[in-house]
Amino acid sequence: MLKINFPRLQKDVETLASIGVGKDHGLYRMAFSDGDMQARQWLVQRIEDAGLTVYVDGAANIYGRLNWDGKKSSVMTGSHIDTIPGAGPLDGALGVMVGLECLRSFKENNIHLPRPLELVAFTDEEGRFGGMFGSQAISGKLTPESIYSAHDLDGISISEAMTARGYNAMDALRAHRAPESIHAFVELHIEQGPVLDRQKICLGVVEAISGLFKWNVKLIGVANHAGTTPMDMRQDAFQGLAEISMQKMRILEEYGSSRSVATIGRVELFPGAANVVPGSVEFSLEVRDTDQEILYTLADAFRRAISAIARRRQLMFEFEVLSEIKPVKCDPAIVETITGVVKDMDVSYLYMPSGAAHDTQFLATITRAGMLFVPSKDGRSHSPAEWTDWEDIERGANALLNTLHRLAL
Amino acid sequence: MLKINFPRLQKDVETLASIGVGKDHGLYRMAFSDGDMQARQWLVQRIEDAGLTVYVDGAANIYGRLNWDGKKSSVMTGSHIDTIPGAGPLDGALGVMVGLECLRSFKENNIHLPRPLELVAFTDEEGRFGGMFGSQAISGKLTPESIYSAHDLDGISISEAMTARGYNAMDALRAHRAPESIHAFVELHIEQGPVLDRQKICLGVVEAISGLFKWNVKLIGVANHAGTTPMDMRQDAFQGLAEISMQKMRILEEYGSSRSVATIGRVELFPGAANVVPGSVEFSLEVRDTDQEILYTLADAFRRAISAIARRRQLMFEFEVLSEIKPVKCDPAIVETITGVVKDMDVSYLYMPSGAAHDTQFLATITRAGMLFVPSKDGRSHSPAEWTDWEDIERGANALLNTLHRLAL
Repeated sequence: MLKINFPRLQKDVETLASIGVGKDHGLYRMAFSDGDMQARQWLVQRIEDAGLTVYVDGAANIYGRLNWDGKKSSVMTGSHIDTIPGAGPLDGALGVMVGLECLRSFKENNIHLPRPLELVAFTDEEGRFGGMFGSQAISGKLTPESIYSAHDLDGISISEAMTARGYNAMDALRAHRAPESIHAFVELHIEQGPVLDRQKICLGVVEAISGLFKWNVKLIGVANHAGTTPMDMRQDAFQGLAEISMQKMRILEEYGSSRSVATIGRVELFPGAANVVPGSVEFSLEVRDTDQEILYTLADAFRRAISAIARRRQLMFEFEVLSEIKPVKCDPAIVETITGVVKDMDVSYLYMPSGAAHDTQFLATITRAGMLFVPSKDGRSHSPAEWTDWEDIERGANALLNTLHRLAL
Repeated sequence: MLKINFPRLQKDVETLASIGVGKDHGLYRMAFSDGDMQARQWLVQRIEDAGLTVYVDGAANIYGRLNWDGKKSSVMTGSHIDTIPGAGPLDGALGVMVGLECLRSFKENNIHLPRPLELVAFTDEEGRFGGMFGSQAISGKLTPESIYSAHDLDGISISEAMTARGYNAMDALRAHRAPESIHAFVELHIEQGPVLDRQKICLGVVEAISGLFKWNVKLIGVANHAGTTPMDMRQDAFQGLAEISMQKMRILEEYGSSRSVATIGRVELFPGAANVVPGSVEFSLEVRDTDQEILYTLADAFRRAISAIARRRQLMFEFEVLSEIKPVKCDPAIVETITGVVKDMDVSYLYMPSGAAHDTQFLATITRAGMLFVPSKDGRSHSPAEWTDWEDIERGANALLNTLHRLAL
């Protein structure tokens, strides 16, 4: 089995983790921020130092290329180096650093590769301007309108932010890659969940990326004086929500798969005073699964349950679909290739879904795609406490190296 | 049976309802506001017009007195004319107008009364400066410290507000009435709940005013990514609250009385995002009953349930007692007197608790006290939609008139 240069990878991960550090020790490399720009400059330098070809496309995606001839379809790997505000050191960054190390290893060891290899660091995965800007650009999902309307929370448009850094946002429309130019795409990422860590498994072979539906639901009862309204004369909107919450597990068990999750993460009561029976409640319901049919069935079951509970409790209900994202299956041949590698490496592995969204979702629309997870300590992510043991990082990097090698043959 | 002059009462209620009207048709007679001062001036004039003696004590409570000689103990009635912002026309105001009409009727009909009668309009019942300022003053519950620390939401102290209107807040300490100076106190008030209206009952004879405990409870789990955290690896604080909410009815049924109510009116989730499993939740639990022993038992049962649910769900919990108010029993002899009157009037009545707090609670600490409720349409209160049929108001007024008559004999 091929092996990466682990100390070099470790140093790169540590160096990148030192760029954009905030007072709270979290990373602040939001797209086109000072931290992001500094990290981009450093990455370009590291790609050059490795003797790879640097290419920056119209969406400001940074490529590092090996044996690129503009004709043969490439095997691509990568992730992102931008972060949310207050991030940990590995989300995205690890995939880019491991990818760089793989290409560098191939090059310095003169390993024969029939296909070119590409490393890519995608722009704004984390969503300062909406998220996955770079992978949407590559997969041809952007439109002039979507670029024009992309703003951050302070109202700064992506056009302004890119112009200020010497880019032209509309050039992102030209970053679209022809499907035939990419043979395969594989992203290595931290799991961002507790499954591998809890089970002490080294690697996750991602079979599918979950889709989801996200609703905003409103239950409307009657706000009444908490002292003068007997229990049997109440139309308490919050009690309706409590019952829905308690039925969540039953619905998942009856209609979902072992991968289904449902979350009520946002709840607002009106008027929201200790001495007033809640007159209405608004809450989010987010349900994820890797199978679109199961998502449809779960949506039906939740709609039925909410409607029945509302009717029985004399509440009105309204709901609004905030988003619907279709699940994405990883390419079976790539899943098989990764499996072959991890079996040959003799490390423990688990087939699993990715519950979180990744750039791979967009790449999967134009090429065969797969993902590889390394464990996240206690499932922590989007926090400075995010961590993965170096041993797991090394195993993951070697798994990616050998996967890319087999795909490039 | 004695009868009040209903058209005159109706006109007074309507006139008072026209003082302090806001743009939203709600009333704005918060203590010592322009609306309150205008209403006070009008009330003093109406008392004088009726040939009663006006007295304003150090707490700015307005008295109207009949046959007062400073020696004999009086029969007192009254309520308040101040309002919350955006109030309806009857909360408090009705009790003062009916009381005024009763004294006026006794006087103009030269009815023999061995005891003096007193009408009182209490200062700041609704709580611009904390609530029940006037009845606390009369019952000797104020201290220099409590007066000094009373502020409204804009930070204006009650001292400033009273000084601006020509009063001296510290004089409230001298408004304390000797228990022997009051023979009995009866307050007529709208129910502010739906019980009488739903059951088409004309009058409520209040047996007790509910006490309560109000807690702020915090459940602490772990905030996790809603996509990557399987259901069985979650410590979802909100699910803990949902279960507590669903056990509320069981706890009331097992340990409460038919008068017990429990309300979860305020809920806040952290971080409160659709895609994050709630890491913690803070909520209010307010429980009321007319029996202190039942309140203790309910507090125990809720503590046990919350603790068991938290333990099973691997949540930590913290709780803080925000307030505890002891229930107040109405005087059995006064309840009997009122019952005698309503039976003689042959109107439907119901023994009931007052779930809301009233000035009567403080008067009950220095004298025998009772309350009479008239129905609230649909239980609405603290809203411009607050209403009571004129027929019910007339019946209530006549019931109070005859009750005062019997108590003054």
